[in-house]
Amino acid sequence: MVVKVGVIGYGTIGTRLAQGVSLQKDMDLVGVADIAPTLTVRSLKARGMPFKFYSMDPQANPKLADAGIPVSGTAEDLLKQVDIVLDAAPGGIGAKNKRLYEKYGVSAVFQGGEKGEIADVFFHGYANYKAGIDKKYLLLTSCNTTGLIRTVDCLDKAFGVEKIAVTIIRRCADPGDTHRGYVDLAKPDPVPSHQAVDLMEIMPHVKATGLLVHVPITHGHIINVVATPKKKVSKEDVVREFNKHPRIQVVKMSDGFATNTAFFQFARFTHRPAADMYEVGVYDECIGTIGDDVMYAIYIPQEAVTIPETIDAIRASLKMQVDPHEAVTATNKHLGLEPKKPLS
Amino acid sequence: MVVKVGVIGYGTIGTRLAQGVSLQKDMDLVGVADIAPTLTVRSLKARGMPFKFYSMDPQANPKLADAGIPVSGTAEDLLKQVDIVLDAAPGGIGAKNKRLYEKYGVSAVFQGGEKGEIADVFFHGYANYKAGIDKKYLLLTSCNTTGLIRTVDCLDKAFGVEKIAVTIIRRCADPGDTHRGYVDLAKPDPVPSHQAVDLMEIMPHVKATGLLVHVPITHGHIINVVATPKKKVSKEDVVREFNKHPRIQVVKMSDGFATNTAFFQFARFTHRPAADMYEVGVYDECIGTIGDDVMYAIYIPQEAVTIPETIDAIRASLKMQVDPHEAVTATNKHLGLEPKKPLS
Amino acid sequence: MVVKVGVIGYGTIGTRLAQGVSLQKDMDLVGVADIAPTLTVRSLKARGMPFKFYSMDPQANPKLADAGIPVSGTAEDLLKQVDIVLDAAPGGIGAKNKRLYEKYGVSAVFQGGEKGEIADVFFHGYANYKAGIDKKYLLLTSCNTTGLIRTVDCLDKAFGVEKIAVTIIRRCADPGDTHRGYVDLAKPDPVPSHQAVDLMEIMPHVKATGLLVHVPITHGHIINVVATPKKKVSKEDVVREFNKHPRIQVVKMSDGFATNTAFFQFARFTHRPAADMYEVGVYDECIGTIGDDVMYAIYIPQEAVTIPETIDAIRASLKMQVDPHEAVTATNKHLGLEPKKPLS
Amino acid sequence: MVVKVGVIGYGTIGTRLAQGVSLQKDMDLVGVADIAPTLTVRSLKARGMPFKFYSMDPQANPKLADAGIPVSGTAEDLLKQVDIVLDAAPGGIGAKNKRLYEKYGVSAVFQGGEKGEIADVFFHGYANYKAGIDKKYLLLTSCNTTGLIRTVDCLDKAFGVEKIAVTIIRRCADPGDTHRGYVDLAKPDPVPSHQAVDLMEIMPHVKATGLLVHVPITHGHIINVVATPKKKVSKEDVVREFNKHPRIQVVKMSDGFATNTAFFQFARFTHRPAADMYEVGVYDECIGTIGDDVMYAIYIPQEAVTIPETIDAIRASLKMQVDPHEAVTATNKHLGLEPKKPLS
Repeated sequence: MVVKVGVIGYGTIGTRLAQGVSLQKDMDLVGVADIAPTLTVRSLKARGMPFKFYSMDPQANPKLADAGIPVSGTAEDLLKQVDIVLDAAPGGIGAKNKRLYEKYGVSAVFQGGEKGEIADVFFHGYANYKAGIDKKYLLLTSCNTTGLIRTVDCLDKAFGVEKIAVTIIRRCADPGDTHRGYVDLAKPDPVPSHQAVDLMEIMPHVKATGLLVHVPITHGHIINVVATPKKKVSKEDVVREFNKHPRIQVVKMSDGFATNTAFFQFARFTHRPAADMYEVGVYDECIGTIGDDVMYAIYIPQEAVTIPETIDAIRASLKMQVDPHEAVTATNKHLGLEPKKPLS
Repeated sequence: MVVKVGVIGYGTIGTRLAQGVSLQKDMDLVGVADIAPTLTVRSLKARGMPFKFYSMDPQANPKLADAGIPVSGTAEDLLKQVDIVLDAAPGGIGAKNKRLYEKYGVSAVFQGGEKGEIADVFFHGYANYKAGIDKKYLLLTSCNTTGLIRTVDCLDKAFGVEKIAVTIIRRCADPGDTHRGYVDLAKPDPVPSHQAVDLMEIMPHVKATGLLVHVPITHGHIINVVATPKKKVSKEDVVREFNKHPRIQVVKMSDGFATNTAFFQFARFTHRPAADMYEVGVYDECIGTIGDDVMYAIYIPQEAVTIPETIDAIRASLKMQVDPHEAVTATNKHLGLEPKKPLS
Repeated sequence: MVVKVGVIGYGTIGTRLAQGVSLQKDMDLVGVADIAPTLTVRSLKARGMPFKFYSMDPQANPKLADAGIPVSGTAEDLLKQVDIVLDAAPGGIGAKNKRLYEKYGVSAVFQGGEKGEIADVFFHGYANYKAGIDKKYLLLTSCNTTGLIRTVDCLDKAFGVEKIAVTIIRRCADPGDTHRGYVDLAKPDPVPSHQAVDLMEIMPHVKATGLLVHVPITHGHIINVVATPKKKVSKEDVVREFNKHPRIQVVKMSDGFATNTAFFQFARFTHRPAADMYEVGVYDECIGTIGDDVMYAIYIPQEAVTIPETIDAIRASLKMQVDPHEAVTATNKHLGLEPKKPLS
Repeated sequence: MVVKVGVIGYGTIGTRLAQGVSLQKDMDLVGVADIAPTLTVRSLKARGMPFKFYSMDPQANPKLADAGIPVSGTAEDLLKQVDIVLDAAPGGIGAKNKRLYEKYGVSAVFQGGEKGEIADVFFHGYANYKAGIDKKYLLLTSCNTTGLIRTVDCLDKAFGVEKIAVTIIRRCADPGDTHRGYVDLAKPDPVPSHQAVDLMEIMPHVKATGLLVHVPITHGHIINVVATPKKKVSKEDVVREFNKHPRIQVVKMSDGFATNTAFFQFARFTHRPAADMYEVGVYDECIGTIGDDVMYAIYIPQEAVTIPETIDAIRASLKMQVDPHEAVTATNKHLGLEPKKPLS
């Protein structure tokens, strides 16, 4: 069974979704759609159009033509050919796009920028795969929540987790952003952070709160987690479980993975496409215990971390796999995450 | 009783110590000493020499003369006139200076950059004033530890505190630093952070751990604290206790105190000398509870936060007050912290 | 003759205008007006209301009352009492405010954010004072243009200047800004920069072009000027002329003035109110010659650099002085710029 | 004729040199050498050892073994097999390494961090190729100088260039650097910048000066050039010449190439290895004229910009081509720079 997939919105997330889907042997990326000849759309042309491009709005076609972008049709032309779309339009636009998806009867997976009501289910490949099976509209958790849940779900399955309190040190802009960004400034959000609230929706048996602080960096987030497991665990227990997880990489700071940017640089040096990374990192030297609690720090690569779980969502929605483990394993294999190659 | 005080090292901390001591009606700032015509030393001249200046090293005198800095003598000349010195030399130099202090029989308070063995006691004005009484050599806690202990001690006295896990978002450079700093990068330190370890030395009945992450900002640190009190407390309980404390300011983000830099800007706009701030801030909207734990976020102004506790240390060492409350109240009054004027 | 002045808009620039006017012995600051209890407005209360405060919009009064800000009346009440207003409202609002100024027949000086048509004359205290005499509405040059013109006019009066090409390294946000800012990014504007164009309007005999690049800093701008004088000049000639100018400070990097932030820190250490600086800096070690051209680098403190020229504008508009030299000298004396105290 | 090449130092520059040489069909990359299992050395292993690795120092072998890095021998083993080495060791180490190169009689190309006396000639592929022919030791110009000379040489060949004055806005750290970096600070260097001085050594008929300002960015430098051509030229003339040059890309800011980081992002999106870029960019909207001068702004990608000219140096030193145009064309073709694909 090969399912047909479209990507709506070819920006920071859409480019990564298209790349990720294009690697899945049981998926066919029919094309991507966007509205203007942005830098990312121009990059398609520079790469020789590995994916077909569709125009979200015929009014934009002259500009696209000026930029020499070959246009294969409208977004509606794309929708006619696909089983499911991955919506990576800017936050709020997804709700408008949904009407179009309904018109053509295609399923859709929305990214974390949309509101919960858009979807039938709030989804995470590892934590609630079954809840997504056969659902028409799925909403992915945001980048921080996706990565956080990976680790909490991992510990929860091994030891049970009662509660967590997290501190999220968040990149305030993506590389190249000129419409937002901070200089010499850190800005907390009121508590609880939405990541904690969202985690509780997916994992209702865990109590969670969190503080998020925006800081002037562009390469990923760092989350410090204080977790209360249901039984006493040691650092070694935590490392052992994380080491088994295909989407979590425990690294040693002493090996050079000492910052957020080190992961990004390593992805550059190993020629990962777009210097992207699907896994979250956990700094070995930053895992500790305090009383019965465990503390650990995660690195979240904001641009590509949600790709695996979004591909899981395709599998659930189209019932490509019923067994969660089979589903995530399929995704992982095609993305090169299984068999696991430890970074450090 | 007016005690005679000298300040050794007139840099980031030394300038603030001198300013703070000069405001104490029961202290006489005899002078400050440094080794070169730095920007801060030049600022003394530009201000008309409000404090006498002594040269740490006669070899530096020609350079000081070139810069037009009036030199009142050597550091030894200063030591002959004082009861106590505040040592704010760069980390590690204090240990060398100590021999000089011993030679002249003067007491000394060292800053957090020095190692513990330099001193008879590790000191915090609120948490262990009595331990400092009559001691010859006191070591102040570092800026983060000083501010953190203020809040933990405050809650501990009210409710008892069993354990804390903190996440410290640390400025990586002071304003103007060209010898260190990060661009687009956050760097965690291995756990546990020294702040947690140091807190346990001063407050041995509290279990503590912490993660410290360096980020590219210059105006203060933000600490997120997850504290387990000995009895159930509400946000209102926490706010009430903090509001009573002269060195803690609970502010509302909705009033404009929404970042680290907002405190700094407010200090500028209110014409505080050097835009400095002695109090730590607590963001009202960032106080929350999770199970039996309390979570709150502190702003630590790294440049002046240790000044009040350092002045407390003078009081303890020279036995100016025996009662801790009388001591900190004297310091607070002279610094304008009592009666308390809420910022927000 | 004491003239009555009001300040409309009490933000980044308005606070500095009020402070500057309050120092002028021949001016009476009747009050300042703003629309909301911002951090700067709250700072007035924290300082004990050194200036009266008026509400721009009665609808804002409940919020101001909640914040405990004493309101002396409406902006119109303020306008009834003054000869002239300094408009420091956000860019574009000045045009709306002008109708109110016309209604009350008061003169107004607008800041660089407004468009040229708002005013009768585009003004710079040193370069075209006479053009402002008796004018009702004056538009100040922006911060970079003001500082740039100071230096070019200085050289022009001494040697004649034929043309300039400038590179402006511009702070992309003010300290504390959360609505703009760049991380790890420099952004050029298309040439020619408005500063070059504006300079030619004030100094039409000089040819000018420029490139402006936004960079992630908050403390001032650095402008590199390549100027073609009408006769051959040496570095010494340039330094000598700059040293005579009360609003230009030639500093030595080897004395510690090696960055933009060094000026800001020096202003903090010398307890200048709000750590502000009226003068532009010129780095001695960055003055050079190339063929017949002169190259030099200026530091522009964006927050307060236009204050002296704005006060000059009051003098011109209200014909307080007819002679330009008498006018700027009066401003300088009250601001502490004459007699000049070299920083370095 | 296939020449045998080794790369000494596998860090920021060495990784790019190895990648660039590996693409040259007439060169054989025998191996790379380094001293420790750094992040870049680990990346070799993660990529399956596309190049053989040699150990600079046998004492480091246990650490390399611990990291699982297969070691093919010592640096001397590498030297025995090659005709020429590219030395990318940290600044100053190249001078020590040279003795080893002499011992084995291999030619060497040093990077800009070394001092001039190390080499027989200071080299730039376009500006003085012939000077490098048959020379044993060549020193490459630094990243800024290399890119600057490309553009000045291009204009000089077309129109003649009399003099230039440049302003270099320099990244203060590479991505991931923790040993240097600035926060909220710009730092000028004394004039003239070494780039101007170096340019005059390569192009002695051009007068040059320059100011360099370090700013808190990591992705490349921006140079603003004010050039005095020997005859009157228009913007169109400049664009036409740059458009002919395989290593210069004129881009439109309105197409999305509006910052330094945009180039970097485009390299990511087009899956260039390590997101690297060999060409310099010129912002179309930042080209202008002032009197008889031309002004234009260049983007310099610091990590890979010197690679083409370094490969040219191999060609010159080993006399692979005698004709400069044949040499640079060979380099360009293998690097994918000819036939030229305009970015914008």
